[in-house]
Amino acid sequence: MRKGEKTRRHIIIKSAELFNQKGITGSSIQDIIEATGVTKGGIYRSFSSKDEIALEAFAYAGEVLQEHFEKAVGSAETALGKIMALCHIYSDTVNNTPIKGGCPFIISAVESDHALPALRGHTIAAFEGSLAMLQEILKLGIARGEFQADCDLESTASFIFSSLEGGIMVSRLTQDNKYVNYSIDNIETFLKTTIAVS
Amino acid sequence: MRKGEKTRRHIIIKSAELFNQKGITGSSIQDIIEATGVTKGGIYRSFSSKDEIALEAFAYAGEVLQEHFEKAVGSAETALGKIMALCHIYSDTVNNTPIKGGCPFIISAVESDHALPALRGHTIAAFEGSLAMLQEILKLGIARGEFQADCDLESTASFIFSSLEGGIMVSRLTQDNKYVNYSIDNIETFLKTTIAVS
Repeated sequence: MRKGEKTRRHIIIKSAELFNQKGITGSSIQDIIEATGVTKGGIYRSFSSKDEIALEAFAYAGEVLQEHFEKAVGSAETALGKIMALCHIYSDTVNNTPIKGGCPFIISAVESDHALPALRGHTIAAFEGSLAMLQEILKLGIARGEFQADCDLESTASFIFSSLEGGIMVSRLTQDNKYVNYSIDNIETFLKTTIAVS
Repeated sequence: MRKGEKTRRHIIIKSAELFNQKGITGSSIQDIIEATGVTKGGIYRSFSSKDEIALEAFAYAGEVLQEHFEKAVGSAETALGKIMALCHIYSDTVNNTPIKGGCPFIISAVESDHALPALRGHTIAAFEGSLAMLQEILKLGIARGEFQADCDLESTASFIFSSLEGGIMVSRLTQDNKYVNYSIDNIETFLKTTIAVS
């Protein structure tokens, strides 16, 4: 990797962590300078604007999460096990998440709602990707005879996603992991009692 | 109400809607001037800073929500009916919420996580208030013989709250109410299949 590319990558990684903790709107170029140790000139040699950094940082966060997702999905044999392994990526939301500061989806969803329209399409794509992944696992569960064939795939996947993200949001706010773990435990109970083949 | 008080109230109401749509960090004093039609001088005669407006706007949003909560809780006889009526406050998250722009808790939780520490305590108090309200309704359900006596009140209340808030976040992002309604429908299924007395 050439020096310019290395600097660019370093800025993206550090900015992803910064944005995930302070928000994109809440992070100034000065914050990026402090977080990266790169001068203002160095930052503007690599990027044209903070928005460009934000888009690259979100793409980078997506790559990191994808690695964690694949590892989680591969760690269990059953569909239920795969879903729970995905959820458990966030069981220590307070201290240990793939990108420091919680789930990047939350910041992006809230900020791109109205404040950062350029990020909105990417955030929707990330949500749809997560939903598709969960639906594939639910289909696998049906094929394996774990889940009922008439299970509503989209509704169930959306509920898993929303419950987990809501729990992450509350655990970040309160700095208490118990709330995200209530979500995780109740998602498991929900799957076992409503869609599992009894 | 004196003119000064009337202006102050007008700024708080319009700012609550503004912050709920653009975020607090994302809203400038200029945005507040445009949203309220009050001059900069007029705003600074009523408030010392944007942070003070943000705290007052959050308190105002809490009052509005409380009215909606009480109406919802009073609209149903059963504990399950009360919980579902509370959830249905947000069934048209895209077009019609108590404070325009979604649920004020989400913006405050995300922004006060790191960016606005002054708001954090108030946001935690709002969450704890919601949790206590849901636990009281669950207790009523147990007393009425609707819910099982060994139901974990805190875990169940937290799961209802997180699933609904996560659904609101996704519906705001996608501008599609189906996601929050997946949460609402699955919360009902969850309550009926896991804690209801069969």
